[in-house]
Amino acid sequence: MEQANGIITITTDFGDADGFVGAMRGVILRRYPLAQLVDIAHQVPRQDVISGALVLGRACLEFPPGTVHLAVIDPGVGSQRAAVIAETTDYLFVLPDNGLLTFIAQKQQILRVHRLENPAFQQQNVSNTFHGRDIFAPAAAHAAAGVKPEAFGPAQAHPLLLDWPAPRQEEKTYLGEVMHFDVYGNAMTNLPNTLVAEGSYRLNVAETSLFGPSTCYQDHAVGEPLFHKGSMGFLEVAAREDHAQRRLGLKRGLSVTLEKLGKVEQEPAAD
Amino acid sequence: MEQANGIITITTDFGDADGFVGAMRGVILRRYPLAQLVDIAHQVPRQDVISGALVLGRACLEFPPGTVHLAVIDPGVGSQRAAVIAETTDYLFVLPDNGLLTFIAQKQQILRVHRLENPAFQQQNVSNTFHGRDIFAPAAAHAAAGVKPEAFGPAQAHPLLLDWPAPRQEEKTYLGEVMHFDVYGNAMTNLPNTLVAEGSYRLNVAETSLFGPSTCYQDHAVGEPLFHKGSMGFLEVAAREDHAQRRLGLKRGLSVTLEKLGKVEQEPAAD
Amino acid sequence: MEQANGIITITTDFGDADGFVGAMRGVILRRYPLAQLVDIAHQVPRQDVISGALVLGRACLEFPPGTVHLAVIDPGVGSQRAAVIAETTDYLFVLPDNGLLTFIAQKQQILRVHRLENPAFQQQNVSNTFHGRDIFAPAAAHAAAGVKPEAFGPAQAHPLLLDWPAPRQEEKTYLGEVMHFDVYGNAMTNLPNTLVAEGSYRLNVAETSLFGPSTCYQDHAVGEPLFHKGSMGFLEVAAREDHAQRRLGLKRGLSVTLEKLGKVEQEPAAD
Repeated sequence: MEQANGIITITTDFGDADGFVGAMRGVILRRYPLAQLVDIAHQVPRQDVISGALVLGRACLEFPPGTVHLAVIDPGVGSQRAAVIAETTDYLFVLPDNGLLTFIAQKQQILRVHRLENPAFQQQNVSNTFHGRDIFAPAAAHAAAGVKPEAFGPAQAHPLLLDWPAPRQEEKTYLGEVMHFDVYGNAMTNLPNTLVAEGSYRLNVAETSLFGPSTCYQDHAVGEPLFHKGSMGFLEVAAREDHAQRRLGLKRGLSVTLEKLGKVEQEPAAD
Repeated sequence: MEQANGIITITTDFGDADGFVGAMRGVILRRYPLAQLVDIAHQVPRQDVISGALVLGRACLEFPPGTVHLAVIDPGVGSQRAAVIAETTDYLFVLPDNGLLTFIAQKQQILRVHRLENPAFQQQNVSNTFHGRDIFAPAAAHAAAGVKPEAFGPAQAHPLLLDWPAPRQEEKTYLGEVMHFDVYGNAMTNLPNTLVAEGSYRLNVAETSLFGPSTCYQDHAVGEPLFHKGSMGFLEVAAREDHAQRRLGLKRGLSVTLEKLGKVEQEPAAD
Repeated sequence: MEQANGIITITTDFGDADGFVGAMRGVILRRYPLAQLVDIAHQVPRQDVISGALVLGRACLEFPPGTVHLAVIDPGVGSQRAAVIAETTDYLFVLPDNGLLTFIAQKQQILRVHRLENPAFQQQNVSNTFHGRDIFAPAAAHAAAGVKPEAFGPAQAHPLLLDWPAPRQEEKTYLGEVMHFDVYGNAMTNLPNTLVAEGSYRLNVAETSLFGPSTCYQDHAVGEPLFHKGSMGFLEVAAREDHAQRRLGLKRGLSVTLEKLGKVEQEPAAD
């Protein structure tokens, strides 16, 4: 990563009711008054690390090189999980070592990982339940101010990465699964948009066959399910002005298959 | 509008769970690191353009001249609706051309409207589903940095404006309707506060007669419905520490009438 | 307080749907463009002053000296309650005089309180329902810009403070009560963490006995209730990956007792 640029993004599952993120912002500004604080999201599904990894991944790569990304979705707070700073090609990430880097690790090289153990870069009395305030926020402040990763503590070889199921291919069919839902009920799969070339495809999920990819919600009736190339780089299942997750009864891990249609069966016949 | 002042406000229906707004913030800061980002609201009722126009209208006029207002409530994303930049007396608005300017058009002169078609001011690969990130955020960044509306694309004559029902007068009665609810269940009407002069009035809505205008919630019993001069400039129906919309069964479009009371019937008799 | 540092924090119960906070931000930036706006929380439970006092208290002390804290949880808007600016050891607080300072008053000395009555530091037309925009936001802007408390209006002797029940001691048992819930259902008591020294304790609440304090959620089964030293400085009742408030049927004001365990009964026998 080049020089820190002073921007600190914050991603949490802390919501906006309790002042938890407010306390973190105060800690940062006390230690580094020039920090430029930018929110990514604070309503990440509670303690859902995979969702946190995806939400962080969706937004963080848009930021200028030199940004510090602070993320706290931390079901293991108070346990033995490490708190780390990770340097990638363009960024510094300050977060619990619980898999939050899983998605980013596919997009950026992870150059080094250091543990947040230096008490000079922590609050004086570290609580057992709020490391966002006591460990992660101060570390992000100092990293944005130019403190190098090695100053925070000993190196560790790799960050913890969660399984990211790769799509499989059986003859002309791609097999994947539902990975994540956004707040509108759109279902992101692990099938990359790039699997879809010219022509028509059938995507099967939950006993429903969808023909596409669609390029415009307005081509569908209200409520109709569809699939399209998602803005995260993966195929998504949606429904026009409706909640695809509830409408189709989708769950994380449900299998999805994708087939290219021959010229004959390109559009399903009305029955 | 005078010179851009570097402030960009953001209004969306994207919520705070998915990092959509976070991605937009990153895009802006990468293109214009000096931008000062300010949130107006992100929980606008989903795909509700009239509510978006009102929420934007409530807040945007408070900002200093030269502010860029970026608003994305965009049910037509991916369809043929235009993406535009509109210059008004004091501001630049960057938004889908779907009626989001309806309320502002009553308060500021719309000087010119240009389409966002110049690819230099868009992300490289424009998705079908996330123009907030790919078209509107980059345009807002460049506008705040001083790029003039004509540089974004061809002019169009007018923005699309939605019907804003004007109140009617029949003898001494004003007829209006319920326009919008805030999150507390208060109902905004299209009857301007200025219809109410000295003296007492009766406002009828949903078979309920309310006498006022009230100047203080504390003058009412808990739960009691009332009407008062709203902070948006229109009469509102509320209920003390209660949700007037649910309590009175109100819906958008429901008719409302306002009559000035004669001196005799100024207070309703107890029965 | 030393010199204002330009930071203004904002705490409200206005949510993120209606643009109320957006309007306040605009008012501030029009009057003091150099203000650095930082959010503490906007989903404080509606019109719940005690919760607001705790949320504000949780976060505001983390900020650098010279910060202006603007807080609007204001069930009495439009009534005779005063609007005030209070100077403490380190900060300026701009808020309705309704008890929002109750928690901070235990942590910082309140040096002086002035009423916000000078129309030069208010919006031109003050509404009855939105003093956040019309009185508090402009006052915060001017305070951050360096205007001294006495310029806003006449002094008053004290701010209004709500009862903060002190824990009582009966022989070896401390008696307290449930004060507040966070959004995860964790219950904060009024028993300070400092009552717990070395050794084991029993905390009784709602016919449940909890043995602790716990230092790590992972030491408990999923759903199991526990108590621990809270990050606010008070003992809290929680449940691993569960909502302690609902699980145990807790309410604000419910009594809580804390006893130190003798060496013999340190762990409860299985029955």
